[in-house]
Amino acid sequence: MSDNRIFNFSAGPSMLPLSVLQRAGAEITNFGGSGMSVMEMSHRSKVFQKIFDDTQEKFRRLMGVPEGYKVLFLQTGASGQFSMIPLNLMSRTGKADYAITGNFSNLAAKEAKKYGTVNIAADTSDCNHTRIPTQAELKLDADASYFYYCANNTIYGTEWQYVPETGNVPLVCDMSSDIMSRPVDVSKYGIIYAGAQKNMAPAGLTVVIIKEELAGSELPYTPLMMNYKTMIDKDSMYNTPPCWCIYMLGLMLDWVDEQGGVAGIEKIKAAKAAMLYETLDNSRLFTCPAQIGSRSDMNVAFRADSEDLNAKFIAEASAAGFANLKGHRNVGGMRASIYNAMPTEGVEKLCEFIKAFDKNN
Amino acid sequence: MSDNRIFNFSAGPSMLPLSVLQRAGAEITNFGGSGMSVMEMSHRSKVFQKIFDDTQEKFRRLMGVPEGYKVLFLQTGASGQFSMIPLNLMSRTGKADYAITGNFSNLAAKEAKKYGTVNIAADTSDCNHTRIPTQAELKLDADASYFYYCANNTIYGTEWQYVPETGNVPLVCDMSSDIMSRPVDVSKYGIIYAGAQKNMAPAGLTVVIIKEELAGSELPYTPLMMNYKTMIDKDSMYNTPPCWCIYMLGLMLDWVDEQGGVAGIEKIKAAKAAMLYETLDNSRLFTCPAQIGSRSDMNVAFRADSEDLNAKFIAEASAAGFANLKGHRNVGGMRASIYNAMPTEGVEKLCEFIKAFDKNN
Repeated sequence: MSDNRIFNFSAGPSMLPLSVLQRAGAEITNFGGSGMSVMEMSHRSKVFQKIFDDTQEKFRRLMGVPEGYKVLFLQTGASGQFSMIPLNLMSRTGKADYAITGNFSNLAAKEAKKYGTVNIAADTSDCNHTRIPTQAELKLDADASYFYYCANNTIYGTEWQYVPETGNVPLVCDMSSDIMSRPVDVSKYGIIYAGAQKNMAPAGLTVVIIKEELAGSELPYTPLMMNYKTMIDKDSMYNTPPCWCIYMLGLMLDWVDEQGGVAGIEKIKAAKAAMLYETLDNSRLFTCPAQIGSRSDMNVAFRADSEDLNAKFIAEASAAGFANLKGHRNVGGMRASIYNAMPTEGVEKLCEFIKAFDKNN
Repeated sequence: MSDNRIFNFSAGPSMLPLSVLQRAGAEITNFGGSGMSVMEMSHRSKVFQKIFDDTQEKFRRLMGVPEGYKVLFLQTGASGQFSMIPLNLMSRTGKADYAITGNFSNLAAKEAKKYGTVNIAADTSDCNHTRIPTQAELKLDADASYFYYCANNTIYGTEWQYVPETGNVPLVCDMSSDIMSRPVDVSKYGIIYAGAQKNMAPAGLTVVIIKEELAGSELPYTPLMMNYKTMIDKDSMYNTPPCWCIYMLGLMLDWVDEQGGVAGIEKIKAAKAAMLYETLDNSRLFTCPAQIGSRSDMNVAFRADSEDLNAKFIAEASAAGFANLKGHRNVGGMRASIYNAMPTEGVEKLCEFIKAFDKNN
């Protein structure tokens, strides 16, 4: 990589394309002849409104967001949505279905219990979340306010390879760690949301795609900033939005366009993930805890049998310019997060490093 | 100004020092030899933790935050605090005092009514908020959970020139538009908070200074991300914080240091405001709606008698490089927001422009 940059395998925040950062840097004191940085602009000004509108348009186009859905630019990450979803949707029937496939869906279910009855539709904690439940395993309540799941489990390295069928129950999905890595049929969902800091933009922005008809049933004590209806009515500008992150998202979306859109990204990411899993499967030392058929293309968890070897691998990889490969404490071992902006070159070089380590240890 | 930049009198987001923007631009692809942008760093990494800790230390030092208080880096702006404050403090006695001196304190009081009984301790809407109430006018309830006020009213151009005396009732203050423009005795307050986008950093960061003993009495339905106790216990990192905005705040605090700290800033801002008010008071055409003794040093509202002249002034000023001088629709006329980062040169040139306009019209 140029500019003395490293390959950063962090689970998030994570890499951004160098070209995007360079573009942001080039206009940081004067955006488009406005005489201002985007960081200095009134959110009510024409120049910022155009950035906002263009970013909305690009996101809708690239994600194929249909009519009847609104795209919101919010804050406070997935954890904010853990509350906002039940605050706004739980009153439909007073209960909701949650599939527990990792840490974040578990936290979401725990938070939802403050606001109604939570039915655990699936729970893979008995196998330390090494697999995704099948459709047949889901214990669905036809009267649930919504069905909640997390598409990709960052910590455990698993990813749903199908969209759950829930009949008339609206699907709510946390796509924080795999949004824009594969085409999604938005019309199947009630709400899709993602903290932006893994695949889309710097931390501080949460993108929500919501079927508009689902808004307007919030519980009476719903905080102002957690009311989807208000955010829809005010087009995410009830108050000052995170302007810089929205601008950065716009630059990222231009980059996604350059990669051939989400379909183009999918091809690249599938090749990157296949290369890494193949390298690991062919190694003597390493195994992947995630079961085949449930493996994530975004977060590749792997480990050697011995803790000494894991520690040695992480230390040597770090010294060689592969940063943040240590696995989460719930799983141990290593984790390579290879989000959209991780260059193919980074995965190739990591594979070479793994092969050499495998040979020499 | 160099670099074809303009003087931006926006009420917020607003100007940042050029040197701060240039420094951010210089390290946007590689911060301090880390090989990463701050926008790409794991918030759990050592390199980001150091940015976070340094920013905390600088803020505490510059604001004189005493022991027993925590500084939180949150999101969702003042409107988020409108809910968070009653959600966490209202259970003390079930009621709270609010002083209504403008749009934002009014919205705060309205939101608080969701969570308890609101006593209107003062309300200056009868004079369209052209003045700040005196201490003697405040209708205080000795049993209130807290007393809430907004230190500076951006729309109306008024500013509290004293700290209300409320006995044992904790003071809660929105300082979004005048924080760091004057020294504050933090020990007099229970909570001080500020959206960062006027005087401190880009939009997307809300800084809260909270007396720690006030946390822990949240209502049972308080959302995860709106629980002060959780944010204190997790040092603002329950989940990913707005890392870039925190970094930018750190750069801004270095700049405040270069100006002689908050005391140094106060001298500069008092001189800027005095120059502008004197020019307006000595003009034939312009008057200031804010009453003397209640005038804001941050947002200077003024107007001519005729709407045609106001429109002409705004158009000609804009063409001359003075941006965003149109007043809020609640007040009309003009408003010059001269926050900390507005250079003295910008105010001097605006004064020259006002004098010439006054002579020629």
